[in-house]
Amino acid sequence: MNLTGDNLISGAFVAGKGKTFSALNPLTGETLAPSFGEATVEQIGEAANAASAAFQSYRRLPGAQRAEFLEAIAAQLESAAEPLIARCGQETGLPAARLKGELGRTTGQLRQFAAVIREGSWADVRIDPALPARQPAPRPDLRRTLIPLGPVAVFGASNFPLAFSTAGGDTASALAAGCPVLFKAHPAHPGTCELVARSIARAAAQCQIAPGVFAMVHGGREVGAVLVRHPAITAVGFTGSRHAGRAILDAAASRPVPIPVMAEMSSVNPLLILPGALQTQTVALAQGLAASVMLGSGQFCTKPGVILVPRGAAVDTFLTHLDTSFASAAALPLLTVGIQSAFISARARVTTVRNVETRGASSSAPASAAPAAHTGVRPAYAVTDAEAFCREPALSEEVFGPFGLVVLYASPEELGRCLDRFEGQLTATLHATEADWPQVAELLPRLEQMAGRLILNGFPTGVEVVPAMTHGGPYPSTTDARFTSVGTAAIFRFARPVSYQNFPEQLLPPALRDANPEGLMRLVAGTPVREAVPAANP
Amino acid sequence: MNLTGDNLISGAFVAGKGKTFSALNPLTGETLAPSFGEATVEQIGEAANAASAAFQSYRRLPGAQRAEFLEAIAAQLESAAEPLIARCGQETGLPAARLKGELGRTTGQLRQFAAVIREGSWADVRIDPALPARQPAPRPDLRRTLIPLGPVAVFGASNFPLAFSTAGGDTASALAAGCPVLFKAHPAHPGTCELVARSIARAAAQCQIAPGVFAMVHGGREVGAVLVRHPAITAVGFTGSRHAGRAILDAAASRPVPIPVMAEMSSVNPLLILPGALQTQTVALAQGLAASVMLGSGQFCTKPGVILVPRGAAVDTFLTHLDTSFASAAALPLLTVGIQSAFISARARVTTVRNVETRGASSSAPASAAPAAHTGVRPAYAVTDAEAFCREPALSEEVFGPFGLVVLYASPEELGRCLDRFEGQLTATLHATEADWPQVAELLPRLEQMAGRLILNGFPTGVEVVPAMTHGGPYPSTTDARFTSVGTAAIFRFARPVSYQNFPEQLLPPALRDANPEGLMRLVAGTPVREAVPAANP
Repeated sequence: MNLTGDNLISGAFVAGKGKTFSALNPLTGETLAPSFGEATVEQIGEAANAASAAFQSYRRLPGAQRAEFLEAIAAQLESAAEPLIARCGQETGLPAARLKGELGRTTGQLRQFAAVIREGSWADVRIDPALPARQPAPRPDLRRTLIPLGPVAVFGASNFPLAFSTAGGDTASALAAGCPVLFKAHPAHPGTCELVARSIARAAAQCQIAPGVFAMVHGGREVGAVLVRHPAITAVGFTGSRHAGRAILDAAASRPVPIPVMAEMSSVNPLLILPGALQTQTVALAQGLAASVMLGSGQFCTKPGVILVPRGAAVDTFLTHLDTSFASAAALPLLTVGIQSAFISARARVTTVRNVETRGASSSAPASAAPAAHTGVRPAYAVTDAEAFCREPALSEEVFGPFGLVVLYASPEELGRCLDRFEGQLTATLHATEADWPQVAELLPRLEQMAGRLILNGFPTGVEVVPAMTHGGPYPSTTDARFTSVGTAAIFRFARPVSYQNFPEQLLPPALRDANPEGLMRLVAGTPVREAVPAANP
Repeated sequence: MNLTGDNLISGAFVAGKGKTFSALNPLTGETLAPSFGEATVEQIGEAANAASAAFQSYRRLPGAQRAEFLEAIAAQLESAAEPLIARCGQETGLPAARLKGELGRTTGQLRQFAAVIREGSWADVRIDPALPARQPAPRPDLRRTLIPLGPVAVFGASNFPLAFSTAGGDTASALAAGCPVLFKAHPAHPGTCELVARSIARAAAQCQIAPGVFAMVHGGREVGAVLVRHPAITAVGFTGSRHAGRAILDAAASRPVPIPVMAEMSSVNPLLILPGALQTQTVALAQGLAASVMLGSGQFCTKPGVILVPRGAAVDTFLTHLDTSFASAAALPLLTVGIQSAFISARARVTTVRNVETRGASSSAPASAAPAAHTGVRPAYAVTDAEAFCREPALSEEVFGPFGLVVLYASPEELGRCLDRFEGQLTATLHATEADWPQVAELLPRLEQMAGRLILNGFPTGVEVVPAMTHGGPYPSTTDARFTSVGTAAIFRFARPVSYQNFPEQLLPPALRDANPEGLMRLVAGTPVREAVPAANP
């Protein structure tokens, strides 16, 4: 595997001169070689300045060349797949099949962004030709396009060590936009980060991309804080806890020059079951829900954490099947010891509330066939009533891990009062039959206000990487609901418009020239067209 | 005129229960009747809660109905034009011709946003149809559109009492997006604000728009701070000073739920003259520059504040003509006594720097034919060298008013060092002949990084309201370079995406239905088309 524990700075793998640390196998508790060196303030500064220097050449590459770079990263990752998945499995405890799927998603994202920038219309070109005869004064020619912001600091997420990490969606969308990336490796999977960084470095060399365009530094929150405050950094992408995300947001906002932070932080993803659905889909709903809560050991941003279930005839059957699903599940390994202890205390904050009953994880549950993981926890759920839910704020907070809270509601009014308790969410899900549709229509406006993605008769886990995806939502699910971190629209986080007034063709970027040599969809005089701009009247 | 000095809260004109104040005629120094009452915290809360309540119905109106509302506001303003322009002239000292033009721009903006939402494609609809046969799992149908953020706090700007105030671009774009607006009137033109608010209220009544959709409160910074911190407010639009803008940004960032602030604050709009242009256009450049610096008494956000001029044969002629233009200009009235004293001290900060020579405003300048204004100041400019400019940070700060600083540079390298001193800007301007184009091509990337709009052979004052306009730029010119506050793209500041997964046609908003009943340009499976989504294979 040739892991060295190095940082990637200015195109070279170099030893971090800060503290050293090692990764831990969460299944066995064993320390994994090698040891990694954190980057110092000076090393971070070197990487940031190299990113700044590389920005000017990188952003001016034609889209096709940046696309080749993204595609080369994807190909390099595929050719390094075997050792990568092996190391990643050791560092995260995630099974090879899941990691293989996640790698496919990661390379798929890179290729999707490559296609977007190869095609080029994402730059939202707008052309308003001159009106030389306008009274009282002629109107000048105005043309605008999007250009990249500058170097972006990306924080790796623990729960998707490939798709939301070194070469994940934040990195792919920033590189696609034309921004260099300073990546802070996640300390829970530093070897995975190094292997991916090596793939990126090989792709950069192959495509003659300037060495400063991608850097990777190891470290914890202190290293992250230095990154966010560095003057060369122009934006931040982060996926992680609410506490860490808010700290980054506050640091970015208090800079002499504040910068945008796209942090995806916290969501309980309310799942509403309406009476018709509960009545007709009782067992399938219980089983699907349990599977969604436990998927990836419950460590998905979109895990349904609070489930609103109507009281009535079918409730007992529903809960009995939930009991069965949870009680028959094996203990599930969490990604880190830290996540394990946070899970145990967050779950306790919920289950110790009056009128909250823990279910599913009885001590008589069958022992798992697999050996118990070092970070293993028993999946469980709890049941409460709307009154307790509305009274106790802790019940609407995220418990990161395999745990869900079922809230029984007696009427649409009680459901409405429960909905008032939720903060901003990534997703909101409805289970409904056609008989429930009038209620769905009534609920939709509230759910739209609450969340970035609404799901009907499905489960929120599983985030498709498509242009129509919104993986984002009102605070605290993210720090800016106007953007998504998944799907091709994620590129807009890292770009800004610039307008050219009264420039001759020769001095304009090709995308803005009359002839439209790149065949872009452009907004010409307010109308989207792919045609060339007609020659001005003489 | 029927001015009452009232606030507009929940659809009713009511007396503010806070401090009272009056407007001042800046030309005469006279106090203008009536007295205005500031809104109290309770009154602001009432307005904000009414906006929240009205939001749900307002945002769900079809685009055409919101368009009618905007058009009705424009028509109401036109029918109230005469008293409006009269009062506005008294409060601002701006001549009727200018205000008539500004009113035309204001109604034009309203109608342009009406056209945008009537057409509807701005909502960036994206549709990715289901792939039921995909392996290993089917892909669900995903459709997204943009929806409004929620109630927006808009701060009136002093320098455009119509186009950037009560019914100005921020209000128009927020109302167009579907957001209610809480408008803080500018204390320098409160009567103008009231008259415009009365026009909006009449339009709302005529179009049966809920009363909470538009509110106006009077007050200063305290009232503004209460607005920004109110939980019902979801975004802020502001145009004004750097100090006030940063205070709003910091207040918004420190809320329990941070909200986006689009503040346009400070810009010196560097204007670069290249050798060929100076040589061939000497006199025209000097005259055009002087006119641009003095336009609107130099109180435009895009006034060229720093002018970089190459040393050489033509410099003396250029400066002589600048001298003539400035020295022959009458004293110019500023909008307020506060702006006048800020101008005098900001100008002194520049002109007291070593190696800065003040020119143009000699005491022997001919007296103005018009009576001297209470807030009058003499337009002037100063000249310095690149060395002083690079040494002294005060020289690259905005002086709001009729003053410009000419910096003489000796070489492209010295010009480059000067460019390094600039913070983020709204605009950057180049004057160049074809002989200068190689240098222009070299400078463009730096200017793109610095500013939101680049102008060739023109002057930055004069901001066209067109889709291709960018009136925005890197900090401190604005707080978020990813947006514009002028032109149709300004609507994106106040909208966010929401995705619908697996919804049947009947439950989808019309814009997202297969048939595309509104005929929008939509991104279907990644390709922009106006066609309906083809029926799925059976």
